[in-house]
Amino acid sequence: MKTTIGVIGSGSWGTALVNLLTQNGYHVNWFVQSQEIREHVYEYGHNPHYLSSASLNMSRLRVTIKIDDLIEASSIIILVVPSAFLHSVLSKSTYPLKDKKVVSAVKGIIPESNEIVADYLFREFNVPREHFAMIAGPSHAEEVSSEKLTYLTVASEHVDLAKELKLLLKNHHINVKISHDIVGTEFAAVAKNVYAIAAGIYHGLGYGDNFQAVLVCNATQEMREFMSKVCRVNADIIESAYLGDLLVTMYSQYSRNRNFGVMIGKGYSVKYARMEMLQIAEGYYGAKGLAHFMEKLNIDMPIAEAVFNVLYEGQNASNVFSELSNELS
Amino acid sequence: MKTTIGVIGSGSWGTALVNLLTQNGYHVNWFVQSQEIREHVYEYGHNPHYLSSASLNMSRLRVTIKIDDLIEASSIIILVVPSAFLHSVLSKSTYPLKDKKVVSAVKGIIPESNEIVADYLFREFNVPREHFAMIAGPSHAEEVSSEKLTYLTVASEHVDLAKELKLLLKNHHINVKISHDIVGTEFAAVAKNVYAIAAGIYHGLGYGDNFQAVLVCNATQEMREFMSKVCRVNADIIESAYLGDLLVTMYSQYSRNRNFGVMIGKGYSVKYARMEMLQIAEGYYGAKGLAHFMEKLNIDMPIAEAVFNVLYEGQNASNVFSELSNELS
Repeated sequence: MKTTIGVIGSGSWGTALVNLLTQNGYHVNWFVQSQEIREHVYEYGHNPHYLSSASLNMSRLRVTIKIDDLIEASSIIILVVPSAFLHSVLSKSTYPLKDKKVVSAVKGIIPESNEIVADYLFREFNVPREHFAMIAGPSHAEEVSSEKLTYLTVASEHVDLAKELKLLLKNHHINVKISHDIVGTEFAAVAKNVYAIAAGIYHGLGYGDNFQAVLVCNATQEMREFMSKVCRVNADIIESAYLGDLLVTMYSQYSRNRNFGVMIGKGYSVKYARMEMLQIAEGYYGAKGLAHFMEKLNIDMPIAEAVFNVLYEGQNASNVFSELSNELS
Repeated sequence: MKTTIGVIGSGSWGTALVNLLTQNGYHVNWFVQSQEIREHVYEYGHNPHYLSSASLNMSRLRVTIKIDDLIEASSIIILVVPSAFLHSVLSKSTYPLKDKKVVSAVKGIIPESNEIVADYLFREFNVPREHFAMIAGPSHAEEVSSEKLTYLTVASEHVDLAKELKLLLKNHHINVKISHDIVGTEFAAVAKNVYAIAAGIYHGLGYGDNFQAVLVCNATQEMREFMSKVCRVNADIIESAYLGDLLVTMYSQYSRNRNFGVMIGKGYSVKYARMEMLQIAEGYYGAKGLAHFMEKLNIDMPIAEAVFNVLYEGQNASNVFSELSNELS
């Protein structure tokens, strides 16, 4: 009998993963946030809000709005909701997670507790470390859905679980790398969104490609410094789960975080830019999460700090980023 | 009395440097390749072929087609011609270079001798090591000319020379970093053009941003491996003279090398793509130069090798790059 996978989350990355796993021949239980979405998927075979051009294989898909049913019926649970909503979504469930394999495809810090997803699951739901894995990019959902060649990274401290996930995910357009570094992979996924906001702000302010390249180098240096403080594993920053994920997010037209930054750079208020974004810009919460760790660990991260100061301290983006632009290395 | 600078080369980067140095208040002697260009510059105040929207400050500019005059009249000589032409241009001069400060802004390997510019100048013209420096990016000429903030790197083994050049180049939109690594900086500048061709080929073949990010990471790894074999200095690959220059070239719309690759990826022959390019794609020669060093030093560089095989061995781009795409890490 084949593995049954539960996917919690119906945004673009959740939809792309559901599409990929059913294409790969697996049965998927999919938790979506409303009865309307559920009915739309059953009636039309696609998500009404995200990646709606992806025709889902309904013969292998069961859509539900009951999270307990989904957890009970699935041996592997993939979490793919914005970090800001993860706690409220999982809190609705009474079914224990600790006997499940739990995979995070979330890219953020839990705002309620300032934890990365791994630590949150270990503490709040007693998920054993060996049952936890995460899926990292570089992986824009749009390209995974349109079958553009993509390298994913699966990180787990338990190599058998990583290998099992690799088998589920890989196919002719998905390559999967295995990593043991869950902490670094999570933090890199958080930080890249914050740096993508910085890239967007600079673009919005009119800075060009020459400077963007310098910004990316400095962001990579900041990330390496940060990871050297928090990781158990000695991570090589220029691997695709770290630098690659950073690049795709800082450079790509699909990046919500970058687009959020562009609006701010062009002079829109943070509040207005947030309202205009149809999808959550994870970096908004990530900036606050990183600020917490910067303070706790006494680490200097000038770019991440500049983003925080603009998003949360009401500082003027043009002033803050103009000053920063001459202090890079 | 102010320094008089000689600039040899009238392509886009040469024009941008002439424009920058005269803006900064220096007197510049400019060697251009033809009497027509010289007359056009004097009559209209701009280069007819490259960056023609840049209005040059003619009060500080003397344009010549006599290379000996230029060398004699200048204390600092900046070389900024394609590497494939450097030997033929300098061979026309009989005036000795050894008493001048010689600065390379060339990004390539001398095809006649398979040397980086530094080694070529040391050997062929007895330029003393302490009189040599190079200027590296990330720096698209178009953005320097339109005053977009740019960080340049000046590399020299002689720190006073590097500092002198920094003073000449810096202004409100140009920041200058100093490096001691002339060999690594030169090789990085060669390699980035080869990798930009690879990026272009993949783009032309229809690969997307997710894969592009993985390609950049692998190119960075290749470059680090190569530099660890050839540099005297322990270079940190994620600094802007290395990774930054790579990024701007692999990602940017302005990159001739990338555009050359795009044509090949779309199915044009190498010969046709070369004819279509109005400006030299340095990476075409760089690929051959790198291949020489790969063999000499017995280094595996799969991406650079794939580019070489397509450009020089007549191999099919789609086959070669499709195979490579599944062998990255």
